[in-house]
Formats: sequence, C-alpha cells, structure tokens
Amino acid sequence: MNGNKAITKRDVDFAKWYTDVVMAAKLARYSNVKGCIIYEPNGTAIWEKIQQVLDRKFKETGHKNVQMPMLIPENLLRKEGELVAGFAPEVAWVTQGGNKELEERLCIRPTSETLFSDYYHDVVKSYKDLPLKYNQWCNVMRWEKEARPFLRGREFFWQEGHTVHATKEEAEAETRRMLQVYEEFFKDYLAIPVITGRKTEKEKFAGADYTLTVEALMYNGVTLQSGTSHYFGQKFSKAYDIKFVNKDNQFDYAYQTSWGVSNRMIGALIMVHSDDAGLVLPPRIAPIQVAIIPIGKDERVMALANKYKKELLENNITAYVDDSEKSPGFKFAEAEVNGIPVRIEIGSRDIENNQITFARRDTFEKTTKPLDTDVVKYTKELLETIQKDMFNRALERREKLTFEAHNLKEMEDILNKQPGFIHAMWCGDNACEEKIKEIKGCKSRCIMEDAKPIDNKCVCCGKQAKYHVIWGIQY
Amino acid sequence: MNGNKAITKRDVDFAKWYTDVVMAAKLARYSNVKGCIIYEPNGTAIWEKIQQVLDRKFKETGHKNVQMPMLIPENLLRKEGELVAGFAPEVAWVTQGGNKELEERLCIRPTSETLFSDYYHDVVKSYKDLPLKYNQWCNVMRWEKEARPFLRGREFFWQEGHTVHATKEEAEAETRRMLQVYEEFFKDYLAIPVITGRKTEKEKFAGADYTLTVEALMYNGVTLQSGTSHYFGQKFSKAYDIKFVNKDNQFDYAYQTSWGVSNRMIGALIMVHSDDAGLVLPPRIAPIQVAIIPIGKDERVMALANKYKKELLENNITAYVDDSEKSPGFKFAEAEVNGIPVRIEIGSRDIENNQITFARRDTFEKTTKPLDTDVVKYTKELLETIQKDMFNRALERREKLTFEAHNLKEMEDILNKQPGFIHAMWCGDNACEEKIKEIKGCKSRCIMEDAKPIDNKCVCCGKQAKYHVIWGIQY
Repeated sequence: MNGNKAITKRDVDFAKWYTDVVMAAKLARYSNVKGCIIYEPNGTAIWEKIQQVLDRKFKETGHKNVQMPMLIPENLLRKEGELVAGFAPEVAWVTQGGNKELEERLCIRPTSETLFSDYYHDVVKSYKDLPLKYNQWCNVMRWEKEARPFLRGREFFWQEGHTVHATKEEAEAETRRMLQVYEEFFKDYLAIPVITGRKTEKEKFAGADYTLTVEALMYNGVTLQSGTSHYFGQKFSKAYDIKFVNKDNQFDYAYQTSWGVSNRMIGALIMVHSDDAGLVLPPRIAPIQVAIIPIGKDERVMALANKYKKELLENNITAYVDDSEKSPGFKFAEAEVNGIPVRIEIGSRDIENNQITFARRDTFEKTTKPLDTDVVKYTKELLETIQKDMFNRALERREKLTFEAHNLKEMEDILNKQPGFIHAMWCGDNACEEKIKEIKGCKSRCIMEDAKPIDNKCVCCGKQAKYHVIWGIQY
Repeated sequence: MNGNKAITKRDVDFAKWYTDVVMAAKLARYSNVKGCIIYEPNGTAIWEKIQQVLDRKFKETGHKNVQMPMLIPENLLRKEGELVAGFAPEVAWVTQGGNKELEERLCIRPTSETLFSDYYHDVVKSYKDLPLKYNQWCNVMRWEKEARPFLRGREFFWQEGHTVHATKEEAEAETRRMLQVYEEFFKDYLAIPVITGRKTEKEKFAGADYTLTVEALMYNGVTLQSGTSHYFGQKFSKAYDIKFVNKDNQFDYAYQTSWGVSNRMIGALIMVHSDDAGLVLPPRIAPIQVAIIPIGKDERVMALANKYKKELLENNITAYVDDSEKSPGFKFAEAEVNGIPVRIEIGSRDIENNQITFARRDTFEKTTKPLDTDVVKYTKELLETIQKDMFNRALERREKLTFEAHNLKEMEDILNKQPGFIHAMWCGDNACEEKIKEIKGCKSRCIMEDAKPIDNKCVCCGKQAKYHVIWGIQY
C-alpha cells in the first residue's frame, strides 16, 4: 500500500499525519466552539468499546458507578490548598444563571476529588461504612489554549475512580491494583506495552501523596502519560473532614485514592499503531472487526457475503457487508482508512476459482483460502494473530527507541537525534529535574520502582544517584 | 407488609413519600451544590440499565452515537429565535476561563439543537450525505430554582437524538418512529402504560414545528411528560443554513427532528410502582432481579444459596446472596426497600422440610416450593409474571383515574376531588387553554390524534370543538 492521498506521510510530518488520520477516519472534527472537539460516530464507537471493557473490569474489582454534579462552588474547591493551586488557573467559571449574577461562582469540574470528598464527609460515619469504591464516567473541563482531538482540549471524557478506606494499607493496595488494571488493559486490549512507576514530586497530581502512572511511547518517540492512580493518604479527609469511628471506637480520618484514564487513549491508539493508509485498530477494541466486500452484483456473491456476516455475528465477531454502489477499490480504501482489522473479499471469479481472500489491515497481507474454509474459525484466529502481532511490533518499536544516558551530553545527543524513553539515574534534586527540562522540554516520566540502577551518579549533577528514572518528551 | 419506618405513607403525603423512597432505597441525595443531585450507585445502576436497552433500540433503528461540546457560544445559541426565547432565561453562563474574562459568554447546553445544526451545516452537502441519524447521551443544565431527584434539577441526564433528512416525509416518519420506540420501551420495560399524542402550540418545544409526546400518569393522579419527539421541518436548517444539493441538482434546506428521554423516567418508575415499603422495580429494568437470603449459618444452606446464585447468573438472571452479618428480617427489609423483584429465602429448617420460599416484592406474596424445583425456570416465569402484573396494575390505576369533562364545572369537580387524565374537547383557542390552567394549573397534556370526539363543544367556551385533548396537572 502506498497510503491514502488525504493523509500526510507519517515520516514527513507526524503532527499533520495525526490530524489527517483523525479526519480521514472520521473520528472527530474541530467544532466552532473554541477549544472543543466534536466526536463523530467512528470516534465515539471506539470510546464506547473502551468504556465497556473497563467498566466490566471496574465492577469485577468491586467498584460501583455514581454521578456527582458537574459544577463545584468556589468555596468547596478551595478547601484543599494544593489542588486549588494546581487547577484554579485552568478552570471555566459559571458566574450567571437564569439571567442573574450568582452570589458565588461555580467552576465546571476539572476533576472531582472535592465533590467526592464532600459526599464522603456526609456519608462515612463508621468503619462499617468502609470501603466505598466509586467511579464515574463523565466529561470534565480544563481551559486549555488549544485543542487536538483526543490529546488536548477544553472538554474531555474520562472515568474517575474515587475510593475511601479505613486503613492506609487498604488504600495503598487499591492505588496499586487500579494501576495494574490499567496496565493490563493497555497490554491486552490496546496492544500497547506500557511502563509503570511513580511520578516525581514535581510531576505528581496536585494534592496527592504520590502518583503512580502508566506511560506509553508513541511511534515518533514522544511519550504519553496515559493513566494515573493517586494515593492521597489523609490529605483530603483532613481538608474535608471525612472522619469515622474505627474498630477501636476511636475517631480517625479516612484514607483515599483516585484513578483515571481518558479518551486520550484513542490518541495513543492512533500514534502507536496507525500508518499512512489511516487508522489501524487492535481487533479487541475495534468496534467493527470485519469488512466483507462483495465484488460485483452476482447473486451467489451477495448470498455468500451475507452468510459470512451472519455466521460471524452469531459468533460475536462484529462484521458488515459493504453493498453500497462504490467501486471495490474505493470500498477497500474505506475499510482501510477506518482501521477495520480484517477485510474479506469475494467476487464471481473467486467463486469459480473456489476461493475467498482475507486481507489484514495491519500488514496488508492477503491470504487466499478455499471456499469450504471454516470462516468463523479462521477469522477468529486471524484476529487473535493481529492482536498479538500489533503488540509485538509496538514493543519492538519501543525497545528500538529506548536509550540510556549517563551524563547530560549523552541525554542531549539522544534527544537531538531521536527522542524516546531515556533511562538515566537521578539524585532526587528538583534543580536537576529543572535543568534536564531545558533540553527540549524533556521531563521525568516516572521513577522505576523495581529496576536495577544503571549508574551510581546523577545524570545531571554527577552526585550520588537515588532513583532510576525514565525521561522523555511529553505530549 | 406494614411499610418501612423510614418512609412516610404514600397516601398521607405523596411528595414526602417520594423523597423518602429515593433516600431509603439509596438512589440519590441532595448535594451541597445548590440545585444539583448526587446519583448514588442504586440510582446510577437503574439509569445504566435503561441506557443499555434504549441504546440497543436506537442502534437497531439505524442511529449512531456522537458527542458534541457541552458549551454553546452565545451567538450560536441566538441564531434560532424561538429556541433562544424558550431557553435563554434558564441557562447557566460561563463568563470566565483560565482566570480571564471571556470575550463572548458561553452557556452550558440546555439542549443541543444549535450544536447539531452547526455541525450539520458543516458536513451536509448532498442528498448522498443524508440522512444523518445521530444521538448523544449526556448531561444538560437548566437553571431551575429547586431540585427534586429525577424530576427537576439544574443538571440532568438524558439522551438527545438529532437527525437530518432530505425530505419532509422521511423526517416526519422518523419523528413518529422514535415516539413509538419510547412508547414500547415504557410499556415493555418500565411496565408503564402511556398515552401518546401531539402537544398544543402553547406546550410544544420552542422552535419545533410540532412536538409528539409520551404522557404517563402517576399513582397520585398527577401527569408526567415522559419523552418527546420533535419535528422541526426546515426551521433550524434555515436558521443554521443546512443546505444540500437534492436529486434534481437543486439546493434545498434539510428537514430535521430531535427526540429525548431523561432520567426523569426513574421518577416515573417510583411514582407509578413503588409503595410504603420502598422501591418496586419491574424485573426487566431492575439491575438486580433476585435476592437470595440464607437463614442461619448452616453449611448446607450456604451451599444451596450459592448454587442457586450460580445457576441464575448463568441464565442471565442477576442475583446475589446476602451473606452479611445482619438478621434475616433486616435482610428481607433491605431487599424490599431496594425493590429487588424476587427474594428467595432458605434456612436449615426449610431443608429439613424439603422446601424453599419465593417472595414477590410487588405483592408480598410468598410461595413455598419443594427443594427439587427447577429454580431457574420457576424464577424466570415468576419475573415475567411480575412484569406483566405490574403493567396491568398500572393500567388499572390509570383507568380508574381517567375522567371525562364536558364543561368547566365538571373539570373543576374532578380536579378538586382526584386529579387524573381528563378527556375533554377543545376549540383550539389559546384563551381557553389559559383559562383551564387557572384550575389548579391544569394543562393540556396532548391532542389525541386518532380518538373519537366525546362531545362537539369546547369544554371551556362551548363553541365548536376541534380537538380531543387529554388534560391534567403536571409535575
């Protein structure tokens, strides 16, 4: 394949290629509301598929969904100092309602720790009420200057889990468990290998004791923070007075966590897997897995195409027959740009030659099989192979773009040549982190918690190193 | 059953009873954000179940989900005059973002006709692009003075379908089809019989050519507008310039519809079916259908309870075993207040007597069956019986509270004694509608489109009647 004419080549201009793929696959468009995006059917369907899988995983791990209000009164927002400092500069304020000036302005939630904490203050009285493990799927708003579909914008979609526990141990275990849920989801469904670890003090969530993170590497070597799980300790419970009577009949402040992933994951899907012909989707997350393209109007062809569709659907493989007036070539390109993992081609001549053709979206590889092939079985296997191969290719790419640096010069050379994940030791000093940021905005991605040291000196100051850190340029 | 102590008797104070049921069943609570409600796990789970069923129905009728922005710039809102006039007094305005005053204020969507029309203006070029049949599940905001869970509040949850068509006929057929989807959903899932018809000019949606509506009658005889489907003709397409090239190669303005139902349906479920013991849910919409209550700690009892649970779950009947420390009586009351349709009770003595007990939530009726009963089969039948019986009881109640009036005196007498659905003829004159409203705020619910006249004179002025109308007091 030579790519799609509507799409800039990925190696020529990655940013333009990204936007072109989003538009050509009809995932989203810029709206006339500044900073906001319209998510079209193809983009919304991927998000719904992601929601389905994650929601099941959340429920399996004992979480329940709730819906908090979307507005936060200013005084409620201001109760926890660090959170306000972090978010106040980037919120949208409602100051008028029903044609009147409001006595107190309300912000559209940028995140809902404050609302959940206020609720927990009201309902948590005794250790018998704990834990409460709640989640919500919602829209949030942050007043960003620019918008890029799925990556940055004023309004975005996410889930935010907020839990409250009687003990530190239980809350910390929850923080780790949800990080693991995310890690497995990226690996098993999105076919994206990720690195997990702890954020530095500078990069952690405003108000958290510590933040665990899922970091992914895009095709161009830029890193994407893809999911976070925060341990709050008693910070919010003290600010919002979430007190309960423990087993020893004493008052104690509760322990809290929060964790979230957003539709930014769709941006990661594009930037890790897609190519010059458009979107490439891993089969387990593709809303439609198989495009059946009849060639010509032969009745036998149409009958066969519809028979395959029926059999596939009965076996939980999503499929459609493209029986539109368009030419076969146009239909092929359309299935390709939309990222449908498998295309089945069938024409009159194929029937005479006793064959059908399976085309893989990820590799463009075509396989011809006899007509009496068990189509369901073969398709199922092919989809699993594609899923596995996509993960392995992404892993290979990541390994190719993973580097080690032992001093600033090495770090600079890497970033100037080809950015990626850079392993380097760090003394823990904020000044060194700031200095490294001067090199093309390179930031710490996470502290590797179980990795061996690769040096004993800080990559920046050369003093005793404390942490093995992954660095990179971020979206 | 004598009811639940935490719940005011329905016949004593209906409004208080309603709030008590919402609180006792832990569906929702008032938040500390004025006018906004917190939807707790039990309430959210019902909404998710409703979404699941309706979303499938929308997709089966060819609709796709999208997500529009939640903010509308003032100039965009003002393009269609009637809509603005209807909604402008009750919207929330964002005037500051990222610590700056905005050049143009933006309202939080009260409904999204403007955003969809602006989008359709951008993407609709030819009859080949049509129809576009989109829907979104979202939160909307209207600056109400007070909040009542599921009935009225500043923020609520709904779906809004917005479609655009090449012809009047197609758009009108869509308007009717979606009304029918709603009607069937109310009947088949919510077990609520509804009346459908056309809104009068006074009561129709701001900006619509006409509005079709689904009207339900609550236990106390008050009516609830429960879903609407609007035909816009070319009103919005002219205001937002949605032009396309038709088959004759001429420019034409597109034809549009919109239709929506909200989480107000949960309010209807409560006010139609519930009782002094708490929530009563129709089995097809109950998030949990069966509560299995083991009596005592006998191992055989627990084994049997878990076996039933497993078998029920395998057959797509949602069930749980309440193995908590609470007393059986407490567990019974909890399953009751939460509206679980069927309760299975099993204790050591039951095993010795070779029996288990099935209790219906809707009638409190208990049936004892031998241990070798096919529990899955019997439960399935029982759930279907409950579903049917609930519908029939609601229908009976509605028929009991349906009246006819031939003059204002009769209307007044009915409304003073026991409100309900009142059939009465109307001349079509706005003045008569206004005059009828003076009787306890009684409003036209809908014009019956296929019903026979019950008189030839207007119930108000006595002049020639044009319409057979249903009237009632509304929430």
